[in-house]
Amino acid sequence: MPAVLIRELENHVGEEITLRGWVTHLRSPGKIAFLVLRDGTGNCQAVASAKRIDAELFEGIKRCGQEASVELRGTVIADARAPGGFELSVSDFRLVGRSEAYPITPKEHGIEHLLDHRHLWLRHKGPWAVLRVRDEVVKAIRDFFYDRDFVLIDSPLLTPAACEGTSTLFRTDYFGDPAFLSQSGQLYLEPACQAFSKVYCFGPTFRAEKSKTRRHLTEFWMVEPEMAWVDLDDVMALAEDLVSYVVGRVLERRRSELEILERDLSKLEACGAPFPRLSYRDAAEILVRPESVARAEEAGAPPFTPGDDLGALDETILGEGYDAPLMIHRYPSKVKAFYMEPDPEDADLTLCVDVIAPEGYGEIIGGSMRIFDLELLEQRIREHGLPEEAFRWYADVRRYGGVPHGGFGMGLERVVAWLCGIHHAREAIPYPRTIQRLYP
Amino acid sequence: MPAVLIRELENHVGEEITLRGWVTHLRSPGKIAFLVLRDGTGNCQAVASAKRIDAELFEGIKRCGQEASVELRGTVIADARAPGGFELSVSDFRLVGRSEAYPITPKEHGIEHLLDHRHLWLRHKGPWAVLRVRDEVVKAIRDFFYDRDFVLIDSPLLTPAACEGTSTLFRTDYFGDPAFLSQSGQLYLEPACQAFSKVYCFGPTFRAEKSKTRRHLTEFWMVEPEMAWVDLDDVMALAEDLVSYVVGRVLERRRSELEILERDLSKLEACGAPFPRLSYRDAAEILVRPESVARAEEAGAPPFTPGDDLGALDETILGEGYDAPLMIHRYPSKVKAFYMEPDPEDADLTLCVDVIAPEGYGEIIGGSMRIFDLELLEQRIREHGLPEEAFRWYADVRRYGGVPHGGFGMGLERVVAWLCGIHHAREAIPYPRTIQRLYP
Repeated sequence: MPAVLIRELENHVGEEITLRGWVTHLRSPGKIAFLVLRDGTGNCQAVASAKRIDAELFEGIKRCGQEASVELRGTVIADARAPGGFELSVSDFRLVGRSEAYPITPKEHGIEHLLDHRHLWLRHKGPWAVLRVRDEVVKAIRDFFYDRDFVLIDSPLLTPAACEGTSTLFRTDYFGDPAFLSQSGQLYLEPACQAFSKVYCFGPTFRAEKSKTRRHLTEFWMVEPEMAWVDLDDVMALAEDLVSYVVGRVLERRRSELEILERDLSKLEACGAPFPRLSYRDAAEILVRPESVARAEEAGAPPFTPGDDLGALDETILGEGYDAPLMIHRYPSKVKAFYMEPDPEDADLTLCVDVIAPEGYGEIIGGSMRIFDLELLEQRIREHGLPEEAFRWYADVRRYGGVPHGGFGMGLERVVAWLCGIHHAREAIPYPRTIQRLYP
Repeated sequence: MPAVLIRELENHVGEEITLRGWVTHLRSPGKIAFLVLRDGTGNCQAVASAKRIDAELFEGIKRCGQEASVELRGTVIADARAPGGFELSVSDFRLVGRSEAYPITPKEHGIEHLLDHRHLWLRHKGPWAVLRVRDEVVKAIRDFFYDRDFVLIDSPLLTPAACEGTSTLFRTDYFGDPAFLSQSGQLYLEPACQAFSKVYCFGPTFRAEKSKTRRHLTEFWMVEPEMAWVDLDDVMALAEDLVSYVVGRVLERRRSELEILERDLSKLEACGAPFPRLSYRDAAEILVRPESVARAEEAGAPPFTPGDDLGALDETILGEGYDAPLMIHRYPSKVKAFYMEPDPEDADLTLCVDVIAPEGYGEIIGGSMRIFDLELLEQRIREHGLPEEAFRWYADVRRYGGVPHGGFGMGLERVVAWLCGIHHAREAIPYPRTIQRLYP
């Protein structure tokens, strides 16, 4: 007989049904056993009484180890005191797969122990909730772009050259030639937006950086839209629309998971558009104020120097005044990538934007207009010491009917970490890869 | 003033509007110029008359190179003879980006020339249509799994060990340790299906095989669902549902792209469920018939030997009798992967299924039940000479509450190639990677 899902119990009150799942807790004081069953859709308490079932079955239930897989028959009882609101009164039991000395017990474990057992930790409430939020975020992003006529152009991960130098790239041997794992699909999207007008890619991305911060993974997912015939305001509007949409979808469809994570929902509900916009110039003015300088000193962070890139603490200080994500635009060219379009009103600045998540979660989006002029691009490629021949195809975007175009990249794990209110990006991906971790 | 998209011209008949795009053809017999404009959403013919516009503008239009980007103003005229049904009567013109000596001309080019210019070839009708079909296939797959409560579990691409040996893997240095690019997410999904019940991954996959056939790419996308508490019939039913759904969506929403590709739609319309099912045993009987042996001889293909895996020609011969994809199940264990569950009715066979696309497109899906028993799995790992310690976490799936589980992998590019009726999988991905090609 087909099993009922725990999520669907409310439709079966009073019926005799089968449940299948894993035992998360077992308590058997004397002639009664209380067993919490998890089936991937929810949790349900099952109660077995020695009076009502066969003695051998009852002993079998009592011997279940944590995370044993079982099949239970019984009657569904509505009980407001039970977690989830329903309870199963057990009439039959079958052990499917034993479990002994399961390594994640109800006691506290260190994070390294949990990450070493990530393949099992996935079964537990926190990771389960986070990854269900992640699933919703990904689907929301894909719906967002599909509904707006963006065409998915998966960019290659094996690439001959690098967007921004090769020092932070993983290298492999490609049938005798060197190849590098991509750290951005953007270069491949720019030609594609001349074919489809609006495109995006969404795939894994790699950085061989020796960063050990809570925001860094060596392998993470990034979504990158690219649009032809736009200006920086269009790029900023798209970023704002995307983030608002994703926050709204998660609040609508993953509220119970956020509650499991004890996320302060009011903080997410305050993230409506329009997002505040701040120029780098104005941001720099805030950061050189005495109170900001004191904050940096206190935290032992390097002081901000106008003209430099923003550090993590700078972003936190700037974001503090706002409930919604903060958009900082027009950074100095010298701290940004070679392909960014200069600001026509100030050639030292670029037409770019970073989006800073609230609550200290830092940069979640980086975007810009791309250089339109072929000669300027070629000059920048030379200035950055990049191999001209390898970038010839990329320069073709300008050689054959160039148009104003731009886009951005949004890091998935940082967004998920922010939405879930978890400290470290490594918990926002099923099997994290960090500088110290390639297992499991 | 905002530009109108070519796709939306029907809503602007009689109005003066702006179009933006790229010039695909230009013909200017005397005092009139016919220009075909492409904007990523469609094509539109624009007509400029020397009598109606400024002489300098008219000369500018006449000098447009193929793929120059332009902005045109004019009046929309409904004209049943025009491609798309509408024409623009030009009143103003602006050159945005020049284009000279564009390398893909209306003459025939060899495939290597086109692939060398893939970043430009994307702009042309065929690749444009194929990649719009691909976009729809991906969205259909994601909708299919989301709507059926599968949770997306992105599996890592950087892995310490290999699913099926390391000879066909790309290797990289991971901060001093060897790492390999994943060729399947399955091992990572099996633990996850014990947490979420139904899961899937969908990402790039790598094979460093030296295969030069039309079905092989070194980098391709694969979707892999995995389900707990199922049997082989459930796995086969899911494969059938998924393929039927994808075919239906493409027929519904990408019909005009398939028509551009001159795809025989009746062949796709004949692909309804139920799909035919054939056991390997019955398949083998067909392949040893004299007429099958003669076919192999004729094609110079190696003859089929019962007990061996099926070759490409074998699959073609078997598929010929059917309009819909063919499901071949229960192959001999010795030709299949180490993790496949034996058939309880015949231990030499495995509970597995391959789905063969019609029209000679070959295998698009490979799936199976996974070994349930811990001891049997450990024995197989030893028999295949795999490093036991590296697979310990994978064996934990059986150690802690194992359940019957199974799933499959479906190769995206093979499906897209089949649906589009194109010969080679390399045209079913934006930037193909093959043994000879890492550029652009």
